[in-house]
Order: sequence, then structure tokens, then C-alpha cells
Amino acid sequence: MQNFVFENPTKILFGKGSIAKIGSEVKRLGNRVLMVYGMGSVRTSGVYEQVLNSLKESGVDIVELPGVKSNPLLSKAKEGIELARSKKVDVVLAVGGGSVIDTAKTIAAGARADHDPWEFFVYTKLVKEALPVLVVLTLSASASEMNAAAVITKDETCQKFSVRSPLIQPKTSILDPEVLFTLTPSYTAYSAVDIITHMLEGYFTNSETGESPLQDRMIYAFMRTLMEATEKSLANPKDYDARANFMWSGTLAFNGLTTAGMGVVGFPVHMIEHSLSALYDIAHGAGLSIMLPGWMAWSAKKNPARFARLAREFFGVAETDDAKAAAAGIAKLKGWFGSIKSPVSLKEGGIPEGDIEKIADNAVELARTWKLKDYTKEVIVDVLNHCR
Amino acid sequence: MQNFVFENPTKILFGKGSIAKIGSEVKRLGNRVLMVYGMGSVRTSGVYEQVLNSLKESGVDIVELPGVKSNPLLSKAKEGIELARSKKVDVVLAVGGGSVIDTAKTIAAGARADHDPWEFFVYTKLVKEALPVLVVLTLSASASEMNAAAVITKDETCQKFSVRSPLIQPKTSILDPEVLFTLTPSYTAYSAVDIITHMLEGYFTNSETGESPLQDRMIYAFMRTLMEATEKSLANPKDYDARANFMWSGTLAFNGLTTAGMGVVGFPVHMIEHSLSALYDIAHGAGLSIMLPGWMAWSAKKNPARFARLAREFFGVAETDDAKAAAAGIAKLKGWFGSIKSPVSLKEGGIPEGDIEKIADNAVELARTWKLKDYTKEVIVDVLNHCR
Repeated sequence: MQNFVFENPTKILFGKGSIAKIGSEVKRLGNRVLMVYGMGSVRTSGVYEQVLNSLKESGVDIVELPGVKSNPLLSKAKEGIELARSKKVDVVLAVGGGSVIDTAKTIAAGARADHDPWEFFVYTKLVKEALPVLVVLTLSASASEMNAAAVITKDETCQKFSVRSPLIQPKTSILDPEVLFTLTPSYTAYSAVDIITHMLEGYFTNSETGESPLQDRMIYAFMRTLMEATEKSLANPKDYDARANFMWSGTLAFNGLTTAGMGVVGFPVHMIEHSLSALYDIAHGAGLSIMLPGWMAWSAKKNPARFARLAREFFGVAETDDAKAAAAGIAKLKGWFGSIKSPVSLKEGGIPEGDIEKIADNAVELARTWKLKDYTKEVIVDVLNHCR
Repeated sequence: MQNFVFENPTKILFGKGSIAKIGSEVKRLGNRVLMVYGMGSVRTSGVYEQVLNSLKESGVDIVELPGVKSNPLLSKAKEGIELARSKKVDVVLAVGGGSVIDTAKTIAAGARADHDPWEFFVYTKLVKEALPVLVVLTLSASASEMNAAAVITKDETCQKFSVRSPLIQPKTSILDPEVLFTLTPSYTAYSAVDIITHMLEGYFTNSETGESPLQDRMIYAFMRTLMEATEKSLANPKDYDARANFMWSGTLAFNGLTTAGMGVVGFPVHMIEHSLSALYDIAHGAGLSIMLPGWMAWSAKKNPARFARLAREFFGVAETDDAKAAAAGIAKLKGWFGSIKSPVSLKEGGIPEGDIEKIADNAVELARTWKLKDYTKEVIVDVLNHCR
């Protein structure tokens, strides 16, 4: 096991009815809240009303920033920063999924800084101060509700970059599984893919020693539960226990637990996918279900042992040859993604195969920022060719 | 899944060499530290020197309270409270295992209160303030290094009671697996038993619905890793990875993760064992390996389904009849405890079977305090009769 620091102070209020507690959570931190949310779904699902009622009951002033889109834009965060400053808000409340939370985190840091918030994302400035962030989660996937990261896309350049700081980690996140009852089948599937990808990128980071029994078993535990819960949620969208298991395993999957002790985790699949969803109108999870099996097939060619381990220990593949076992495991994963109707090739995702060079050009800059040095343009093209 | 609140802000510094960081961790919180530790082992293992050197380098004043025994006594904590007050310490640092940490927690709360600290343990007073607690862990078992609980025995009455408060939860805990290299085989085994018991008491709490796939799988992941690591540590006490997996799974086993969503967890096995180690000179873990299989056998008679689930899912028992499967699973657990040389009957533990009534008399008072209403004296005698 590698040395590590683990610290995760976010308080989780989990379960049905818990949204009613958001007012008192905000009130503990201040009197004026900036409520950040997305497009229509928080209104149609009734979450907007629940949050608003609780906030009003607690007597806090409410400033609203609606309209955050998926693959959230820096311009939107800047709009929020202006609002937070001019209205002198004390707290930033995200009511949404990863896009909304990451926008709220950017606003929280940006409102306390005297420079362009993009500087946080290109690592020219550190977050030194931030407004407290609270979350009412409406979509499980990013685990942004219980971690210190935010991902934002710069409008002009389509660069999708990330920042990490304990100062922007949510103080409290409210997870009510009932909010997932109205999640569409495709977004249920894409969320599952995203969560699995977070875990497997950590898992494959350890392809050198391959010995991380505790982390491996945690990953298997969360993945198995998530896959079961996905199938049950697709069959019956109002299965509370399925949605609850989905929600809590999604958070645990990427809150630092599964990667603690694994060394420095790289995210090459997310990195290349970021270019897909920056350049095309494709959901992040859909992009990942194209990229992950392709990247695994590409990566297993160099070092099949770790991929064979997943195949054997998780997918029950009996094959003794590592390369064959790895391939069989990848096929099982791809099969499962297909079964929940998430695309598993560029073609299925509606992305022109002729654009591979263009995608690689976009991704290679992120590779530099994320310090994934091995990912040159040629390598990225090679990976993308495995995603056809 | 039941509704829950999860919050665990302790920062973990994990890995070889990490003890050298204790000085700067203390320094962040104050200038004078009360260093609480046990008998000889921290000196012979070299941990004492490492901690002292780091503290001196950081320039903090050191006040020492040595001599904490296992099954720690209230009188010792009171001695520490006096010392903390008279020397005006800012921070309480535990260098040890559960007994030392729980003494440090009691001191931290008691030093800021104007009443007998025992009132915290009988719930007549709440912890309202406490000095910050830091930990350098030398024995994995209690997970007190990452939770809010403390257990203390009152000298005069042999009552072993507990308190919980977020205010006494360690701010930072340093976990260096190398400190376990000198742990004796028997204490390695007893620690494993303690950790397993923490998890299984949570597991069996859910015997009514029986449906908690996420928590169950986390428990299996931690138990499997711990059992493997125990066997490897006994074979080679200086196997770093084995000690590391032991240490981190021991902490994760009882830091709130495995019980979140399981409802109110009772600890009947710990409760009755507390009477064993309060009345006899027996290690807590040894007492637990006597009590746990006996309690399981007693409990499975009423409701075998959950015990059968453990047998099938964890121990690979194929038996379809629940009662038979439960019994086979209990036999496997008992066999494993025996294989690591931890006692599995009152007789093996050197406890006179004729004392069962006396033990039950002691335990029944704790049952009242812990609100385990079903545990009347007759019930406790019945459980103990299953531990013969």
C-alpha cells in the first residue's frame, strides 16, 4: 500500500425526507444563499419546491442562479460570481448533479478571489478562500457532493479543466434517493457508467504492483451493488432501495476511499472523454462508455495482468491466459454497458470516426495540464482507434 | 436502506515514516501537548522516541501521562484531567491503541468540564467542549482513531461504559503500519477478533430486513482483507503490506462506514464481553472470540436467515437450510478464531463456568445503560451458556 492522506469532512444527510433539512443547514452558515441549479428538471421533479420551502422556513434570503447546463461553462460560473458579490451571499447552495455542484464550487472560490477564476483551473492561482458550499443532490455520478474537485469548460476554447481544493468541498450534502425516481433510463445508465469509470481508472492505476486487495474489494463491492441497483432502477424507477444503493455507492465510489493507498491516480479515460463532450453534444457518461472499454483494450495490450485480475475476480472469467482473460473481461463490461443502452463505440455515440485527429488535438492539451505525459497526440489517436 | 447521517472529519496520515509529522500536526493546534501513553511497549518499539523527536523539533512543550492500562480506568483519566488543567495543555495526544485513545478522549472532554467525567458515561452530562485530540496509533482494533466513541471502566464498580461525541473525535490520526511489526501473535489475533466483531455486530443488527447489499459487501471486503492480513502477519510479522492492510481495514471497519444505513446498531457481544474483561484479567479481543460465536449460535436460533446469509456469501457454505447453514458458518468463524489461537469458549479463556450468574449480574447493568432492553439477566445467562 502506498502512503496516503485521507480527509473527507463532508457531512452526509441521507434518506427520504432529508431535503427538508437544507434550510437549517444553510442557516448555520449564513443568512443569504445563492441557489444554483440547472434547467427544467429540478422544477418538474418537485425538488425545487422542497428546497425553497425549507429555505423560506429557515428565514434565509434567497438569490437564484438557474440555467446551469451539463458540461458546465465558465461563463455561467462568472455570472454566479458577479451575483454572489453584488448580492453579498454567505453560502452557495448547489441543487443538482455534478455540473451544478462544480459551478457552485467555482462560484464559491471565485467570489473570494480578485482574479479570473479560470486561473484556478490552469493552476496559475491556488484557492485561498471560498464561500461555504452546500449540496442537494439530484443526480448521482460525479461524487462532487463528497469531494474537493470541480470541472469546468471554458467557453471560447472548449477546454474542460479541473481544480481541487478542500476549501470548495461541500460542508453538507443532502442525498434523498427519491429525487432519482424521475431520472430517465438513459441518464440512469450514463450515471452508472460514470461511477464505474471513476472506480476503474483508480483500479487500473495500480497496474504495476497489482496488489491492492482492500481497495480492489471495495471497488468490487461498490461496482456490484451499483450494477444491481442500475438494473433494478431501470426495471422499476421508483424502487427506493435500488435508488438508495445507487446513490450511496456512487458517492463512496469517488470520495477518496477507493483510491487511498493506490498512489497517484491518473484519469486518462476521463481526460479523452472530456474532449468528446466538449466538442460534441454527448452526455459525459455516454462518452465514457465509448472510451473506457476502448482504453482498456489499448492498455491491456501493454500490461494485461491487472485487466485479467478484474476479469477473474469481478467478472468470474476462468481463462488462465492473461491477455485472453483481459479481453473476456472487457467484453463483459462492454456487454453490460450495451445491456443498459449506453453506446460502446464512436459510431454508436454519433461521433464521426474521421474526427479522431481533431479530438486528439483537443485532448492533448488537457493531457499536458493533467500531467499525463505519456498521452501524446499519437497515443490518443491510438486509444481512439480502439473505440471505433 | 435506513436514513442516516455520516460525518467523519478525522484526517488520516497513513504510511511508513508518517509519525515524523506529529510535531507539525500538534503545532497547528497549540503549544503545549499532553502525551498520553501506556506501559512499556511504546518505548521498546521505538515509537516513543519517534514521537518525542518530532514534537521537540516542532518546539512544543510536552507534558507526559504514561501508564494507561488496557481496559482503561477512570482514575487514570482523572489523573490526566488534573495534569491537563494544571499544566494548561492545548492538545491531548494519544500514543497507543484504543485504551490510550479513549483515555485521551476522556481527558480532553473532562479538562473542559466542571463535573466528574463519569457523568459523560452515564449520560447525565453531555460533552459541550473538549481539547483537540490527536493520535499516533500503535494497535489496530478499536478504530477509536477515527470515531467519536470512548470506553472507560470505573475503578470501584468495574462498570465499563462508553460515551460518544464529535468533540472528542481525533482531528488527525497517524497510522504507520511499521508500528505493528512488534505486535505479538496473540495481540495480532485479538485485534483481528475485535475488528471482526465490530463489523459483525453491525451486520447482524440488520437481521430483520436482511437487505443491505452495499454494507454487507463492504463488511465482506474488510473482513476478507483483514483475515488474509492476519494470517500473513502471523507468518511474517514484518510483512509491511499485510500490516498496512490490517491497519487500514481495521480503521474502516468501525469508522461509521459499515453501519451507515443499517439503522440503530446494538453491541450485545461487546456489552457482555465488557463484563468479562472488567471482572477477569482477559484481553478484550480474547473475550470477544469467546462471546461472538456463542452469541451468534444463541441468536441464530431465533432468526437464522441473516446468519445463513453470512455463511453462504462470506464463508461459501452451500447448505440450503437456513439453520444448518447458520451453524456451519458459525463453525467456520470459530475454526478461524481457533486457527489464530484466540479462545473460543469460557473454559479456553480461563473463565470459570460457575461464574456465569456473576458475569450476567455485571452485564445487565450495562445492558440498561446501552438500552439493550431485551438483554435481561436470564437472556445474558442463556447467551453465556452458548459460550461454554
